[in-house]
Amino acid sequence: MDQPSHSAHAAGSAAYLDSATFLADFHHTTLFGATQNGGIDRQAGTPEHGAVRDWFEKQARKRGFHVLTDQIGNIFAIKEWLPGAPFVLIGSHLDSQPLAGRFDGTYGVVAALHAASALDKSVHEGLLVPEVNIAVVDWFNEEGSRFAPSVMGSSVFAGLLDLEETLGTLDPNGVSVHEALSAIGRRGEAVDLPLAGYAEIHIEQGRRLERAGICIGVVERSWHTQKLLVRVTGEQSHTGATLMADRRDALVTASHVVIAVEELVEDFEPESIVTSVGKFDVEPNSPIVVPRQVDLVVDIRADDKADVLRARELLKKRMEQLAHRRSVTIEAEDFDVRPTQMFSEQSVALGQKAASDEGEESLVLATLAGHDSVALNRVTPSVMLFVPSVDGVSHCEREFTGDEDLVTGLRVLTNLAGRLVSGELGPTKFNGSASRG
Amino acid sequence: MDQPSHSAHAAGSAAYLDSATFLADFHHTTLFGATQNGGIDRQAGTPEHGAVRDWFEKQARKRGFHVLTDQIGNIFAIKEWLPGAPFVLIGSHLDSQPLAGRFDGTYGVVAALHAASALDKSVHEGLLVPEVNIAVVDWFNEEGSRFAPSVMGSSVFAGLLDLEETLGTLDPNGVSVHEALSAIGRRGEAVDLPLAGYAEIHIEQGRRLERAGICIGVVERSWHTQKLLVRVTGEQSHTGATLMADRRDALVTASHVVIAVEELVEDFEPESIVTSVGKFDVEPNSPIVVPRQVDLVVDIRADDKADVLRARELLKKRMEQLAHRRSVTIEAEDFDVRPTQMFSEQSVALGQKAASDEGEESLVLATLAGHDSVALNRVTPSVMLFVPSVDGVSHCEREFTGDEDLVTGLRVLTNLAGRLVSGELGPTKFNGSASRG
Repeated sequence: MDQPSHSAHAAGSAAYLDSATFLADFHHTTLFGATQNGGIDRQAGTPEHGAVRDWFEKQARKRGFHVLTDQIGNIFAIKEWLPGAPFVLIGSHLDSQPLAGRFDGTYGVVAALHAASALDKSVHEGLLVPEVNIAVVDWFNEEGSRFAPSVMGSSVFAGLLDLEETLGTLDPNGVSVHEALSAIGRRGEAVDLPLAGYAEIHIEQGRRLERAGICIGVVERSWHTQKLLVRVTGEQSHTGATLMADRRDALVTASHVVIAVEELVEDFEPESIVTSVGKFDVEPNSPIVVPRQVDLVVDIRADDKADVLRARELLKKRMEQLAHRRSVTIEAEDFDVRPTQMFSEQSVALGQKAASDEGEESLVLATLAGHDSVALNRVTPSVMLFVPSVDGVSHCEREFTGDEDLVTGLRVLTNLAGRLVSGELGPTKFNGSASRG
Repeated sequence: MDQPSHSAHAAGSAAYLDSATFLADFHHTTLFGATQNGGIDRQAGTPEHGAVRDWFEKQARKRGFHVLTDQIGNIFAIKEWLPGAPFVLIGSHLDSQPLAGRFDGTYGVVAALHAASALDKSVHEGLLVPEVNIAVVDWFNEEGSRFAPSVMGSSVFAGLLDLEETLGTLDPNGVSVHEALSAIGRRGEAVDLPLAGYAEIHIEQGRRLERAGICIGVVERSWHTQKLLVRVTGEQSHTGATLMADRRDALVTASHVVIAVEELVEDFEPESIVTSVGKFDVEPNSPIVVPRQVDLVVDIRADDKADVLRARELLKKRMEQLAHRRSVTIEAEDFDVRPTQMFSEQSVALGQKAASDEGEESLVLATLAGHDSVALNRVTPSVMLFVPSVDGVSHCEREFTGDEDLVTGLRVLTNLAGRLVSGELGPTKFNGSASRG
């Protein structure tokens, strides 16, 4: 049932937003790890990442938030209106891929800080009567480019990854998460925040909102995703002196695997599946040595789990043929399997209500990408909002979302967060999350 | 014309060889940078490379050689029988590819030390009357896996590469040749050695001697070789959220390039050309990012320069088609072009004579691989000998040549070196080297 009194309060909070300051703050963050072509490069635990997080903490303190860092480096900026009451979390992540876009993650953190500030003013003015507290969160290492897996900080927070094991994860240079967190001063203490819900806003990283001409997306489910760690082992030999017939070239076979991965999609409905190889390491990688080994990571994602499994089988069969024909071995290991997560009907409905309350049409859609909200949805009622991405591009410097859409998203997030702190998606109203996988 | 008095002297020197000690010394070197599967890993300027070179210097001093290191880190172990006279150099290199075989290069250095020691005894016994002096040389960085290009130390010595520029060459971690040489204590002074010839023995790294059942190869020419630095540039995007149709995946296109390189040979006579990609670097190389860029090195080698040029044109045309079809750019730059070098007829004849004098049949052949002798041949009469490689494999841990062949090669090298110090290939008898390219 709708709760008109709360809704009315929540709706009003957006009036306390200062859009100009929000935009100035958001665009200021692009200075941290700025790249030549308008992007950012702030991999988890790097100095650039440390700097933007310090800036975030300073902004939050200036606005009267109490700031805590937990053991995996998640930062929480807290407003404890009701001592002892649970917390609604809103946020996203400030880390990025290498040479990435400036909107992915960062938009959600800066928007959350401004939304929570507006709610705080609304509470102090007596317009909004909170049933719970609020905290703005910057999750550690959502991207997973330096330390695998991705969605790391929120997964540890949600109990889906082991803290100690995760702290020991190494980057390609042998630096541990623990060391990287110490280096940026973000190795904190255990933080105990009883949860009353989670909300996140993010750029869509797809074209559906743009195609539909709609500004707000409400996520109803995540795609089923998995990776395969593939190792191709041939034999090292001399590029100059080894006859072609005598070679067992791991790179040539691995190249056929990359092409096979791309061609998998031809067996499926258009736009129902995506397949990729993003990581590809050649050994010994010397100009005059025929490669002995290639390690590569295959990424398969589809709305329907059965499609992922069928693509995986097709690929394995193709790799068997390649290994046989080219006298190399190919091993494949399942990795980072993430079954479809459903956001609850109530969560989706609340996101839509917040949008319509702000005069915005909304589109219910699936997310192909992983997000911190997908981890949080496992443990607390969560709502995920999207704003459009121009051309659907992301993880690249030309990723773009216009100021107007950023501000519209901020308004809807503020409305939604107001509803959450008003208890509209409280534990008694939450039906839980169900894996469809 | 033959010079019977010299030949008689030279032939006798092999009697002073101690084969058992030679084999013990050679097999001892495999302890420096030993790998699990019987190979070695001693890239130029690493601690393992430094250690084997220190061992070599100690062995040479023990045998009464005077040892000098030049500015690019070449080591010369000298016997100056005739003060002021020029030097015949014999040697090879102690560095290796990563996870390489234990014969490539090292055999030639250890054999040269034993050959020169035998000649020294022969001189002291009055059996051999030298016209010039001898020096055993360990050239720096023949392999070029850590610092490009390969054949570095001998090329600087021969004046084919600039010293200062070469010292500034960086490895993938930003360490310069200068720094690497300092780290292993091999940044020496200018060494002035007037040249009277060069000889080198090496494993064949091919199957021709093995197929023919002949133990000694005499190199008559090198193949025409060149590399192409290829850069494929697409656009970075999200592996999860980017529709297949929207991608400009540099890795998929680069994989097509690798396959095109391999397929080039189908347009040529069997065994007349080899084509490879050994180095292949993906950016940003993150599991959930569609790659924006791949840098790869194409290696094309053929006996006939025209074949290399035709293969290069075919590849460029194929890359143009790929770039057009897949909306990426592909740039290709010629690199490390090495025209065919002819060893002089007199050099080849002298190598054959040394073999027959030791009762061995010999096969005149071409080298597909580059060698220090190819650089030296540009500035002094040079003779290159081969011994067989089992299965023709090299640049891998199972590279193998039996003890008997190693000792036979040592005998022939000693005979040849005796002829060289006796003046059988003196400047007046040398017609010079001619590039066929």
